[in-house]
Amino acid sequence: MQVLQQQFSVSYSFPVIFAEAVFDLHNPLLADVIRQGGHPHNRALVVIDSEVVRLTPDLLGRISQYGEAYGSVMSFVSPPFQIRGGEICKHEPIEVERIHALVERHKICRHSFIIAIGGGAVLDVAGYAAATAHRGVRLIRLPTTVLAQNDAGIGVKNGVNAFGRKNFLGTFAPPFAVINDASFLQTLSERDLRAGISEAVKVALIRDRDFFDFLYEERANLARFAPAAMQKMIVRCAELHLEHIGHGGDAFETGSSRPLDFGHWLAHRLEELSASEVKHGEAVAIGIALDSLYSQHLGILGEIDLHRILTLLDTLGFALSHPALSWLDVEKALCEFREHLGGVLSIPLLEGIGRKVEAHAIDIPLMKRCITLLGERAAGKAALGVRQTVPANAFGQTYHARALSS
Amino acid sequence: MQVLQQQFSVSYSFPVIFAEAVFDLHNPLLADVIRQGGHPHNRALVVIDSEVVRLTPDLLGRISQYGEAYGSVMSFVSPPFQIRGGEICKHEPIEVERIHALVERHKICRHSFIIAIGGGAVLDVAGYAAATAHRGVRLIRLPTTVLAQNDAGIGVKNGVNAFGRKNFLGTFAPPFAVINDASFLQTLSERDLRAGISEAVKVALIRDRDFFDFLYEERANLARFAPAAMQKMIVRCAELHLEHIGHGGDAFETGSSRPLDFGHWLAHRLEELSASEVKHGEAVAIGIALDSLYSQHLGILGEIDLHRILTLLDTLGFALSHPALSWLDVEKALCEFREHLGGVLSIPLLEGIGRKVEAHAIDIPLMKRCITLLGERAAGKAALGVRQTVPANAFGQTYHARALSS
Repeated sequence: MQVLQQQFSVSYSFPVIFAEAVFDLHNPLLADVIRQGGHPHNRALVVIDSEVVRLTPDLLGRISQYGEAYGSVMSFVSPPFQIRGGEICKHEPIEVERIHALVERHKICRHSFIIAIGGGAVLDVAGYAAATAHRGVRLIRLPTTVLAQNDAGIGVKNGVNAFGRKNFLGTFAPPFAVINDASFLQTLSERDLRAGISEAVKVALIRDRDFFDFLYEERANLARFAPAAMQKMIVRCAELHLEHIGHGGDAFETGSSRPLDFGHWLAHRLEELSASEVKHGEAVAIGIALDSLYSQHLGILGEIDLHRILTLLDTLGFALSHPALSWLDVEKALCEFREHLGGVLSIPLLEGIGRKVEAHAIDIPLMKRCITLLGERAAGKAALGVRQTVPANAFGQTYHARALSS
Repeated sequence: MQVLQQQFSVSYSFPVIFAEAVFDLHNPLLADVIRQGGHPHNRALVVIDSEVVRLTPDLLGRISQYGEAYGSVMSFVSPPFQIRGGEICKHEPIEVERIHALVERHKICRHSFIIAIGGGAVLDVAGYAAATAHRGVRLIRLPTTVLAQNDAGIGVKNGVNAFGRKNFLGTFAPPFAVINDASFLQTLSERDLRAGISEAVKVALIRDRDFFDFLYEERANLARFAPAAMQKMIVRCAELHLEHIGHGGDAFETGSSRPLDFGHWLAHRLEELSASEVKHGEAVAIGIALDSLYSQHLGILGEIDLHRILTLLDTLGFALSHPALSWLDVEKALCEFREHLGGVLSIPLLEGIGRKVEAHAIDIPLMKRCITLLGERAAGKAALGVRQTVPANAFGQTYHARALSS
């Protein structure tokens, strides 16, 4: 028996640029980014979120003018292709096929560009299409929501839904560049502005106590979406996500642990149960509340920390429960989460603000009790979930030692 | 304007194992490979080429018994899923969807295994399905043809056809492991055995003069598929392909150059023009002959070298022309090849045996003349294509200097 061992590394590098008014004719940024590709002239296909077009009616005209102004560097091969924004577009494989058809028809090659403008869902769909055409067309993302600018649009993943399962299909495919244009945020609804803050709370909780303190102190400003506080929140959140992916040693998630998915096992399920009526960021806020409450009931997170977490989420205006949770099958949800991650179950919990720990088993009755408590609290029937509401012997140190590993 | 620069590397490592009788109950190899995944028990979905099943009627039973014998390590989640072998399966997106459906139904996770058994086309389809489900399920390839064992099955790419374009969809996705089981080769037709040798000729021509000399000396043995010569050819060819991918510095082909694609711009097109009646390896032999002849007519490859190349291919039994070539639109074919690669046109040519050079422009009339010459030679109307058949001033040193770069 003879064995040849193949071994190599692939290096990735891309900028996340914070800018304003990208399609202003006097702003050469986008053309400069495209020039970095190394070719004198470049073909580009624009894929755009229909919600962005609705909120910024003159954008299509400006994109077209921008293309003419910088025609020596790039040609837009067709009018921007519009995709219906929000999770709904991820349910529809036809959107991916349509982008593939445009790539084929307009001779978009591996060195050409797909420029995706929109919220996380549209970026996901365009990203999956770009990653699978010709084994990967260059992708420039222009995230237009808070959530996309500080999390969904700056990472290395894409995904579309299949078989009713969120992100069942997808790849790891780092973009060519990300441009976070702050002007897009001015058009967002309060609901969309708010939804984007939960990922900042999440990454603060698992990685950076100072950042949590900042969010807590600025909670009133963030609650009214004061631009300075929002921009600081977005940049630091993006930075923490980039650091985690770049320095975590497992950018393409070959292991079972997925620390950035704190609060996400519930969030993904809640989005499905509510038929995407609950936005991802809103679902994440509930997931954070639940897994923090569970951590506290498990005895690993202090009561004061829990109080601060829930106060922050409350002040930001998040509902911390949802009627659709009555349909939740906790065991099935955890099982499917494990399956999507692969390997053994690994649920990030908190043993302090900024300190996460991985749980490889979940006490199902306790988790259900925490869900009920959140529901009662939201209905005004209960005070803060406190540990003594559940008999202490049900989940003491013994369980802790068995179920957790740092 | 603030810029966060993301930068990281991803390391890949996988073994290519040369073995025999993998599904013999006394051979623990496959179970050992799966054990390397780090989990005590593993779910596995087998995807198999229907042609392999036809040639080895007892294989399905042996796979099932093997699964029982090594049940402590792995469970096959369903009977092997059969895909029609050959290029035809790559035309049908339904095969990819069916594998995705099995992944979903049988709870195949990112740490579970898809075991793909078959020729290059089936490995491509199973590989694409595995790479896109859950952003990548572990893939073990068991290539069953010469071509798959020395080239198609050991690399880092997958692909399926769309819009009538070969490999329009695909990803770069290194496998978990490759097992080259020599027993499969005993069942192959002469045509399939022969088709696999052309990739060895190709890689020898672009990288390794000594290997070419070996192939040339052993040409009579290879022509009758003598096992010892065949096995040596397969192992060295695989090794050269692995070295090129692993040490070429661009494993995922972000640049425009694609030296391993020597002879392939024509080969891909000929497969399409003949509706896959011409096998990939057969098409590559014609592509090698054409681009060698073109190199010689361009004045960069010596006449003796050309003679040896054509003699080797002749002795191995390859037809070096095909009626479908009369339908070839050379300009369009080169244009589509460039588009699939991305960036500028880059066609590998030879300036000696073992020494390739990249051409960024092709003299279309000369290329057409070479195609005609190959056709006439095949029809017995012409001797070896010789340079003086084309006026020397049409493609002299001037052209050479303009069109080539090392």
